[in-house]
Amino acid sequence: MKIAVDAMGGDYAPGAIVEGAVQAAKELTDSRVVLVGMEDVVKAELNRLGASGLPIDVVHASEAVGMDESPAVAFRKKKDSSIMVGVDLLKNGQADAFVSAGNTGAVMAASLLKLRTIPGISRAPIAVMLPTSKGWSVLLDAGANVDCKPANLFEFGIMGSIYASFILGKENPVVATLSIGEEEGKGNDVVREAAAMLKKSASLNFTGNIEAKEVYRGNADVIVCDGFVGNITLKVSESLAEMMEKALRGVFMTNWRSKLAYLLVKPYFEGFKKRVDHSEYGGAPLLGVNGTVIISHGSSKPKSIKNAIFQAERCAKMDIIGKIRQSMEKNAAIEGEFERSPAASGAE
Amino acid sequence: MKIAVDAMGGDYAPGAIVEGAVQAAKELTDSRVVLVGMEDVVKAELNRLGASGLPIDVVHASEAVGMDESPAVAFRKKKDSSIMVGVDLLKNGQADAFVSAGNTGAVMAASLLKLRTIPGISRAPIAVMLPTSKGWSVLLDAGANVDCKPANLFEFGIMGSIYASFILGKENPVVATLSIGEEEGKGNDVVREAAAMLKKSASLNFTGNIEAKEVYRGNADVIVCDGFVGNITLKVSESLAEMMEKALRGVFMTNWRSKLAYLLVKPYFEGFKKRVDHSEYGGAPLLGVNGTVIISHGSSKPKSIKNAIFQAERCAKMDIIGKIRQSMEKNAAIEGEFERSPAASGAE
Repeated sequence: MKIAVDAMGGDYAPGAIVEGAVQAAKELTDSRVVLVGMEDVVKAELNRLGASGLPIDVVHASEAVGMDESPAVAFRKKKDSSIMVGVDLLKNGQADAFVSAGNTGAVMAASLLKLRTIPGISRAPIAVMLPTSKGWSVLLDAGANVDCKPANLFEFGIMGSIYASFILGKENPVVATLSIGEEEGKGNDVVREAAAMLKKSASLNFTGNIEAKEVYRGNADVIVCDGFVGNITLKVSESLAEMMEKALRGVFMTNWRSKLAYLLVKPYFEGFKKRVDHSEYGGAPLLGVNGTVIISHGSSKPKSIKNAIFQAERCAKMDIIGKIRQSMEKNAAIEGEFERSPAASGAE
Repeated sequence: MKIAVDAMGGDYAPGAIVEGAVQAAKELTDSRVVLVGMEDVVKAELNRLGASGLPIDVVHASEAVGMDESPAVAFRKKKDSSIMVGVDLLKNGQADAFVSAGNTGAVMAASLLKLRTIPGISRAPIAVMLPTSKGWSVLLDAGANVDCKPANLFEFGIMGSIYASFILGKENPVVATLSIGEEEGKGNDVVREAAAMLKKSASLNFTGNIEAKEVYRGNADVIVCDGFVGNITLKVSESLAEMMEKALRGVFMTNWRSKLAYLLVKPYFEGFKKRVDHSEYGGAPLLGVNGTVIISHGSSKPKSIKNAIFQAERCAKMDIIGKIRQSMEKNAAIEGEFERSPAASGAE
């Protein structure tokens, strides 16, 4: 396997990216890392890290897309960016997966326009890992597609199930639609119809709606929602965790007793933090395009990149894309059925 | 002022409701509480609590709506429920506000169908208080309206601003639309157009979009979203808080050192919990109907009910409804403008 890595993307690029690639390359047995970026810069980093002899290749790309640049403009004007060159490697079969911590919109645009979606898939969602009381769940879409149709959510459910069975190691992962009531028929029009479609799929272990208060209880392995709701879910969680951490710090900093208390429990807090640490998993795949694309956090440190490379290698080896293609062939009939007969949709 | 209270609604009704009403009545100076419910049951509770001489009246209602009953069925079949009778008191001018911890859907249905919405308002949202790092914010809609149009969110913004200026005591509260990016034009179609409309209102201190990661930072006094997103925001927060509390308990229960640490910081935790305790505020108003309706948590204890009664009294005294009516007159032109010219909507 050849894993292409965007050496120029991310808040700490190229240093942290090249370092992560070097860490991964030291552990890879039969795969190679292909660093895509400005050759002299990347090679200088590799030299600095003493990486000679490792299974690392460098492919030159003369441009880099800024983290805040418009994806559409970047796609039109920066034809030789590390993102474009990386996706081209994937498209031309010169790489089996592509990892980027760069501009998410630009990675999505390049992936969608160059690789295209898998037959039967109309939108490509981003699938993220969510820590729960019981372990981890997969949530999709995390923010790639804001206005969704029922068929989009239906496809997210199919893809999420395949990805979860791989990443969580569960044979028949529990799939749920995120809604505002558990009962069938609760939610907005789109969720209602998507749930009716998912219920019809024989290949899915679909449990119906879950309410948002269930999200962190870990009873659903796959949580399906549109990108607007998914983004809100993730970012609100981030915001609340931030407030609670601040409050907790306030509690512990009140006086000398509370400071002593902090010293007594500090190691266990760190254990908890490590357990819910995203960087252990690497990145989030853009599912549904014809190629394994892993999007890492913009703030990725070397460990994140290393884990994203391993994740990309495993996704490619497991042929997630082939499995999605097969599953969509089996489930295509359901979409057709709902398109023909809106009355069968379950929407009231 | 006469504050009608649904004595039969809520998980701990009638006991906790009547007790809350008695606590409130002891502190009210020029208002009366009107308990609506089965006369013998309510009077027995009042006797038990030794409430004679307090400014409390009882109005009989022969039926009660169950917490899980269908609101539509309850509206059709239980014409003499405490909810229907309470709303009728409001409609007929025999009460100035109505408080219920009962079936939210049934309270909404009765309020909408009997009181109707204020001229210019097409949907009635529920406005909740959200604890933040800086104090409190108002979020609306908390779940009453799942599929919204831009004009609905626009109206929520107008009403939220009036309510926040009263409840937060801020003269010109900062209003924001909840979206997935701060920049103008980010979000889904509905939010984009709603933001464009809110921007045009001269009477609003509209700041544009806030991302969900900002929600608990307290920079916006009023957070506008549809009921689906609002419900997800609140319930996901509940879910994460539950997981974090569980994890925290795990941290403190690890061994004798951590247990000692817990004893040292326990009082400060309780201080924080009290600070973010919803029951201090009472309930959430259903804004936009022709009457002051306060919806309390189903799990309301006497303190919540007491505070909801005070809140209802203040809302009625401040004439929130009159203020909404005036503001809608001023802002009606904006809706007309957007309806006539979709090109002016800012949606791309």
